[in-house]
Amino acid sequence: MSNSIGEKFRITSFGASHGPTVGAIVDGCPANLELSAEDIQKELDKRKPGTSSVTTPRKESDEVQILSGIFEGKTDGTPIAGVVFNKNQHSKDYSMFKNTPRPSHGDYAWMMKYGNYDYNGGGRGSGRVTIGHVIGGAIAKKLLKTQGIEIISHVTQIGNVKAENKDLTSIKENIEKNPVRCGDLKAAKEMEELILAKKEEGDSVGGIVETIATGVPAGLGEPVFERLDGDLAKVLMNIGAVKGVEIGLGFDVATHSGSEINDEFQIENEKITTKTNNSGGIIGGMSNGMPIISRIAVKPTPSISKCQDSVNLEKLENEKIEIKGRHDPCICPRLTVVAEASTAIVLADHMIRSGFIHPTNLDY
Amino acid sequence: MSNSIGEKFRITSFGASHGPTVGAIVDGCPANLELSAEDIQKELDKRKPGTSSVTTPRKESDEVQILSGIFEGKTDGTPIAGVVFNKNQHSKDYSMFKNTPRPSHGDYAWMMKYGNYDYNGGGRGSGRVTIGHVIGGAIAKKLLKTQGIEIISHVTQIGNVKAENKDLTSIKENIEKNPVRCGDLKAAKEMEELILAKKEEGDSVGGIVETIATGVPAGLGEPVFERLDGDLAKVLMNIGAVKGVEIGLGFDVATHSGSEINDEFQIENEKITTKTNNSGGIIGGMSNGMPIISRIAVKPTPSISKCQDSVNLEKLENEKIEIKGRHDPCICPRLTVVAEASTAIVLADHMIRSGFIHPTNLDY
Amino acid sequence: MSNSIGEKFRITSFGASHGPTVGAIVDGCPANLELSAEDIQKELDKRKPGTSSVTTPRKESDEVQILSGIFEGKTDGTPIAGVVFNKNQHSKDYSMFKNTPRPSHGDYAWMMKYGNYDYNGGGRGSGRVTIGHVIGGAIAKKLLKTQGIEIISHVTQIGNVKAENKDLTSIKENIEKNPVRCGDLKAAKEMEELILAKKEEGDSVGGIVETIATGVPAGLGEPVFERLDGDLAKVLMNIGAVKGVEIGLGFDVATHSGSEINDEFQIENEKITTKTNNSGGIIGGMSNGMPIISRIAVKPTPSISKCQDSVNLEKLENEKIEIKGRHDPCICPRLTVVAEASTAIVLADHMIRSGFIHPTNLDY
Amino acid sequence: MSNSIGEKFRITSFGASHGPTVGAIVDGCPANLELSAEDIQKELDKRKPGTSSVTTPRKESDEVQILSGIFEGKTDGTPIAGVVFNKNQHSKDYSMFKNTPRPSHGDYAWMMKYGNYDYNGGGRGSGRVTIGHVIGGAIAKKLLKTQGIEIISHVTQIGNVKAENKDLTSIKENIEKNPVRCGDLKAAKEMEELILAKKEEGDSVGGIVETIATGVPAGLGEPVFERLDGDLAKVLMNIGAVKGVEIGLGFDVATHSGSEINDEFQIENEKITTKTNNSGGIIGGMSNGMPIISRIAVKPTPSISKCQDSVNLEKLENEKIEIKGRHDPCICPRLTVVAEASTAIVLADHMIRSGFIHPTNLDY
Repeated sequence: MSNSIGEKFRITSFGASHGPTVGAIVDGCPANLELSAEDIQKELDKRKPGTSSVTTPRKESDEVQILSGIFEGKTDGTPIAGVVFNKNQHSKDYSMFKNTPRPSHGDYAWMMKYGNYDYNGGGRGSGRVTIGHVIGGAIAKKLLKTQGIEIISHVTQIGNVKAENKDLTSIKENIEKNPVRCGDLKAAKEMEELILAKKEEGDSVGGIVETIATGVPAGLGEPVFERLDGDLAKVLMNIGAVKGVEIGLGFDVATHSGSEINDEFQIENEKITTKTNNSGGIIGGMSNGMPIISRIAVKPTPSISKCQDSVNLEKLENEKIEIKGRHDPCICPRLTVVAEASTAIVLADHMIRSGFIHPTNLDY
Repeated sequence: MSNSIGEKFRITSFGASHGPTVGAIVDGCPANLELSAEDIQKELDKRKPGTSSVTTPRKESDEVQILSGIFEGKTDGTPIAGVVFNKNQHSKDYSMFKNTPRPSHGDYAWMMKYGNYDYNGGGRGSGRVTIGHVIGGAIAKKLLKTQGIEIISHVTQIGNVKAENKDLTSIKENIEKNPVRCGDLKAAKEMEELILAKKEEGDSVGGIVETIATGVPAGLGEPVFERLDGDLAKVLMNIGAVKGVEIGLGFDVATHSGSEINDEFQIENEKITTKTNNSGGIIGGMSNGMPIISRIAVKPTPSISKCQDSVNLEKLENEKIEIKGRHDPCICPRLTVVAEASTAIVLADHMIRSGFIHPTNLDY
Repeated sequence: MSNSIGEKFRITSFGASHGPTVGAIVDGCPANLELSAEDIQKELDKRKPGTSSVTTPRKESDEVQILSGIFEGKTDGTPIAGVVFNKNQHSKDYSMFKNTPRPSHGDYAWMMKYGNYDYNGGGRGSGRVTIGHVIGGAIAKKLLKTQGIEIISHVTQIGNVKAENKDLTSIKENIEKNPVRCGDLKAAKEMEELILAKKEEGDSVGGIVETIATGVPAGLGEPVFERLDGDLAKVLMNIGAVKGVEIGLGFDVATHSGSEINDEFQIENEKITTKTNNSGGIIGGMSNGMPIISRIAVKPTPSISKCQDSVNLEKLENEKIEIKGRHDPCICPRLTVVAEASTAIVLADHMIRSGFIHPTNLDY
Repeated sequence: MSNSIGEKFRITSFGASHGPTVGAIVDGCPANLELSAEDIQKELDKRKPGTSSVTTPRKESDEVQILSGIFEGKTDGTPIAGVVFNKNQHSKDYSMFKNTPRPSHGDYAWMMKYGNYDYNGGGRGSGRVTIGHVIGGAIAKKLLKTQGIEIISHVTQIGNVKAENKDLTSIKENIEKNPVRCGDLKAAKEMEELILAKKEEGDSVGGIVETIATGVPAGLGEPVFERLDGDLAKVLMNIGAVKGVEIGLGFDVATHSGSEINDEFQIENEKITTKTNNSGGIIGGMSNGMPIISRIAVKPTPSISKCQDSVNLEKLENEKIEIKGRHDPCICPRLTVVAEASTAIVLADHMIRSGFIHPTNLDY
């Protein structure tokens, strides 16, 4: 298994839902970035369940400890180990899943591939491993902020409820005012109702999360096989429950003519920009200086309490399964934090790779 | 720049549109695979322009030579170099693009990033570099065929014309019968008309290409950061003109409940399968034994003959641009070959990485 | 900084001498290997200082905890995190080294490169980080043992005292009987005396450590750039204090003719072997089935209590330095454990890469 | 097989002794380096056989062509493909080696590992593949020269004949004056005689090659697992026929005390240097600003015309072998070029990785 992502700014993630810890090693962060556990905790708290009506009522405190890589309040160029010790990990009996894979969960593939599968709480296939992403992302975000780059994710659709387009300032403000982390407060209300209705039914619902990165200079990404859009697509598709990724206009490009959506150039305040941003800030695999915009399609949480058909792998016969427990009826709000983190990791990596951030020492 | 893709089955691509060659090194193909230049030429011929009404009328012969890696008609485990020598590469004057980037082309980012940009025919940013992908993909396809894996790409949408769903056998037959490579002959006719109308206008149009891989065993892909869906998303998004990638239901998951789209298990002929394949053959980042289905959103070719706004980079002032020449009004038909190749490269790589194909010698 | 080694069996190391922890993530160990903290502790105990007359009298308990990767007593294919929490790490004042680099230590280069250097106990430049190597090596050794591969390191020279050649069985027995871990008990006695004499003088002494790996099949290593000898040379030279690496006859080849040292083939018990093993088990960059033999040159510990010339980096003027404390007068005995671990990591990696060990599941 | 080396400045080599070509792709060279085929040809000519009494009288013209990566006389950041087309590659019958491996050649391991081995002229195991190294090295040297870094390799020992230490200027001058490429003209004469005597006997002889790199700034190399000494050791040990690598004092450190060989600091012309350079310019895995000095042990060419014992792999019985042909009686003189190239590749890579050379554009 390979649990690393990034070339120069590199995350190696470890741990499982019900094992002793989940965490990540961040290697390649230059020295002299001010960093404390609080910088990471702040992001983890946004991801934490049990904080609103629309997430699972499970409580997880998720306190991070930094085990290495900081000297006198600053990174020193050595690997940063961030760890969350799991609590109460043996609180529940999962043995009914040992031989009976849950539909649309990774259980079956894990069992086939590794033959020794920690089925408790989904093991390393659990959404809980995204704590590692968020640890890495928090550090990446702090590093990017020194260069004027900011990243924000928000929910744009839940089921058939779609948010209206808002300007970036409104989005930033609004997502803090509703549990769905939607930038349109009116839609947010409807989304919340839809999620609660699905929860009531023991069902779940999908949605779409958009991520906007501003302040990114032109020239990130390496044409052909290490393109910025390819790397974003990989890291975003890698998030559990994501089934689609698009940049800029995305799938809408299919229905358009070149003359309708080509991004023409202009000079604005002596700077070259494009009049439109249908490309979503990436063209030819490289950033072009415009905001980078991606969207991910998030499937409904597969853990539902309705009765479903499965099979018993040992007996090779049909078996019904009901997944009791307190699951997120919609994972989109919490995934906004993971989408931000994943985007930040890719951008931090490419900022170093392209020579915008010094590889060893921020003070150079 | 990094021009390699894949970990064990690894392609390193090189060359530019109007340089001496384009080609690729394929490293990591196990020994004892029967392979000849014809195996590669067959795929290159499908990609070649000038073969139908809907592609550019430019003629490119694109004859591949194998410069290494074959001994007595079989791979010998050493790197396979495949090269196409460009012909007539100095036939046209591109100097008007030297300081005037084409809208929605990579020109501007290339100039910013590298400062020495071969603007002739788009240089290494040209679609012509996908010859390297196809060389790698042809070898990957031959390798996968020894394991019963087949990959087919077809056009499912052009503009607002959508193909109806057909069974795989019909798709395979039908795509050979129409220049659009669409599996639905009725839609194909409409698509062709739409493309020709856009061509007439000096404009272009986008579309969607679907890729289906059958025979893939359960267990490809490494959870968390080297997932099969993440690797497919990367390689597909890396194809020039692609702005979105989806797996299985893709963006449609947003509007569904878990109970509607979870793939329940069943036992069919003593084998475990799922009743539906909304996951598109990948779950938890790993293949589950069902067909692997992806879709890419392809933007309209940005090279259009209509007048567009650009800027002169040297003078830092506005400048109009008209892109004359014989461009593909719709790149989707030719991209089917590149999507197949890219998918094949990822699957071949993961077949070796997961232990299904021996890493050094097919005869083991 | 990159703190990882290995392609398929991959160690990512972290932590510093006086930070909260030192440890390592081992990624890519196949599932179903029986593994416990004791397997690792056993190796760490051999590395631990304070256990004999010839090492530093510093006491370090070095208790390892496994934080992930084990399910029901066996590896489950997910990353294994092994951590040692440092104790009493703030016991001493190192501030005199803040601006005054110690001769033949990494201090100066660290300061130049990273600009924020944890000088306490040498920070991440300390020999204490080899705890990460040993954690990785212990797991690698257990994995290799399932394939009949064993690795043993022993001291063959200290200063001018050289051990006589012994057979492998004697070496294994004898190294447990003397604090120097030398296979020749007579030489061991002289070596111990020499080390104690140097310790008395506040000085240190160098030596040579040999590593022998038996049971390695023919065919490990990839010709040209990922050769087995190249990978061993890298990992062995990477050990702090090592200034030379040789395989088989090593530097002695310079003085010989081909006819004297070529390893001729023979058939022994229906197996092909070589009559001599001057190649040290590696030829053309690949293992040939004979024992793999390497030797490393270990410099005298640079921390000596004698007065030395240094410079003050802030004032840019000459400054004397005396390094008080309880240092190893000779690091060779403790490095045997690190040499074994490093060799094991490379061999485990190549056993998977070459298809001898299944990449995901030992039970296949 | 993996045929690449380097992380940012990356060589991918391909081709075999008697196949159509040998060559290399150089990826990651920044744009705007002036480069022509002549820059590479100059280095290849030094490696070429048939130019003196002490090399094989085989004639190989070895003309390089650059197939990509240059625009208007300068690199443009895209991969540089350099290729030599082999001539007269079918001139000789090698079929007697098909089942009878040559002693101390890679034949046996190749056959075991890949099962389809191009035995003609040693296939990809031939020294001829170092043409790829030299292509990469020539570009690396040109890139390093822009930073004031120079690399020179010379022969210091052949058999028991040892060169006296000379200053760098004399070495540079003297190696051009004798076919052995030795810096001490008196020793060179004796070395030449020794080689010719061995040639006469149908035998061969080993030696030692030293490489000196000047102008390298402090701070190259990443502590722990990507150290500069480790990377040099890997790339040098990877050269066929090399059985040992040492840095600075090398194996001599074993016999010394810390007080004898520690490199004390001093201030010279307001710069910090060390009084001695026993560390060979690398300490703690990083360059310290002093000249980088390495030495490799080169075994006698295993191809000798004396009769040797081998086995027939098909019949599994003993078989005698005589290797006729025109082999180098001593490979050291030609390996100086390969050692320079290999060292240059590592240094160029680390200069980019450490931020001393901009990763995309030399003109930044």
